[in-house]
Amino acid sequence: MANPRAAMLVIGDEILSGRTRDANMHHLAGKLTEAGIDLKEVRVVPDDETAITDAVRALSSAFDHVFTSGGIGPTHDDITADCVARAMGAPIGIREDARAILADHYERTGSELNEARLRMARIPEGASLIENPVSAAPGFSLGNVHVMAGVPSIFEAMVASLLPRLIGGTPLLSETVRIERPEGDIAARLGQIASEMSDLGFGSYPFISGGLYGSNIVIRGTSPERLAEARARLEQALGDDAP
Amino acid sequence: MANPRAAMLVIGDEILSGRTRDANMHHLAGKLTEAGIDLKEVRVVPDDETAITDAVRALSSAFDHVFTSGGIGPTHDDITADCVARAMGAPIGIREDARAILADHYERTGSELNEARLRMARIPEGASLIENPVSAAPGFSLGNVHVMAGVPSIFEAMVASLLPRLIGGTPLLSETVRIERPEGDIAARLGQIASEMSDLGFGSYPFISGGLYGSNIVIRGTSPERLAEARARLEQALGDDAP
Repeated sequence: MANPRAAMLVIGDEILSGRTRDANMHHLAGKLTEAGIDLKEVRVVPDDETAITDAVRALSSAFDHVFTSGGIGPTHDDITADCVARAMGAPIGIREDARAILADHYERTGSELNEARLRMARIPEGASLIENPVSAAPGFSLGNVHVMAGVPSIFEAMVASLLPRLIGGTPLLSETVRIERPEGDIAARLGQIASEMSDLGFGSYPFISGGLYGSNIVIRGTSPERLAEARARLEQALGDDAP
Repeated sequence: MANPRAAMLVIGDEILSGRTRDANMHHLAGKLTEAGIDLKEVRVVPDDETAITDAVRALSSAFDHVFTSGGIGPTHDDITADCVARAMGAPIGIREDARAILADHYERTGSELNEARLRMARIPEGASLIENPVSAAPGFSLGNVHVMAGVPSIFEAMVASLLPRLIGGTPLLSETVRIERPEGDIAARLGQIASEMSDLGFGSYPFISGGLYGSNIVIRGTSPERLAEARARLEQALGDDAP
């Protein structure tokens, strides 16, 4: 059976303006690969109602899972929950279970559960909550859309509590073969091996390091034996001792 | 006049698998903001013909500029140039000007301009070349799509040679006000100021640092005077001494 296919939606003006460097994409990509879920597309959109709603609709109908990051805090620019509810056609309001989590947290920490913070208890009808062990305010899963916070420590904790719930596929394994020769020197033989071993994926990622041109060849597949076979062929055909 | 609106398309399985952390998005975002071009969307897609072609078509018709990164090297998985040509309806083949640049470079460096490397001279008809001072093989602009390499040092050099050609708008300025109070404490007053100064953009970016919850409020606009005014209002309303 094919692995589930996923997309990620990163929400936030601060990424698009270059003010903040997104870290959540790289984190989620690694975790999904380990879980056997194939990340097939990422989109980054601004804190804009139309942009978020359109992207959620498009990705939710095209992929098995959509993971979002950002825009679920207490301030005026946190509009993700409302946009996801609208995109999925679900009513949204303050939900008692989420409100109770917040009330409990703020009582313990001695802060006030004011109107702004209550916004974080707005959860679409039919959604299940995603635990937030860092700062309490929960994320949620509505249909195939999983809504999480943008602050990296909270995002990572939410991913950790969400992923075991989702049914993954066969984890994708990879082997990297470092070839210290320019891509142009190895491209023809690499292409031939890739077409002969078409059950595997072969990617070529060039690097320049200290004036040296080289390439990391990444082989991907689900069988450790086939990966080892491919590594041996690449080393023989492209390594330093190759003709 | 409104600023030009741009999108970026990052191409590469290695980003989506979590193997590589993308650096080009953050670089381009900063440079476009300086140039007065508003980056409004980023998509990351795999080395897949349909995914690339569909994304180029969608972004090229929705935005003033599209910047791509990745997939223009000599190996079998470098299919960006062909996909962009197909998406834009342009014929593609080895172009004499690009071939001359490569021939000259490989003669100087003592390498062979073989069939694989010649692939990098495949440039769509009607495109103008983007200079590559690092490793010679050029990028290109076809219509409003600007095709660049994925290796960060080359991508950055190409952006530097491309941007002066494009007509930017009024550079967006920003001021960051650090508030060492949790978002939930300041959200109501922040929202009010944001609605009263609606010619500016106000973003709230929470942080957790050493157990301290705080928020960076980023104000964006084109007038330095208005930014200073907004900073003063925020500091008065939300700072440590605020009621």
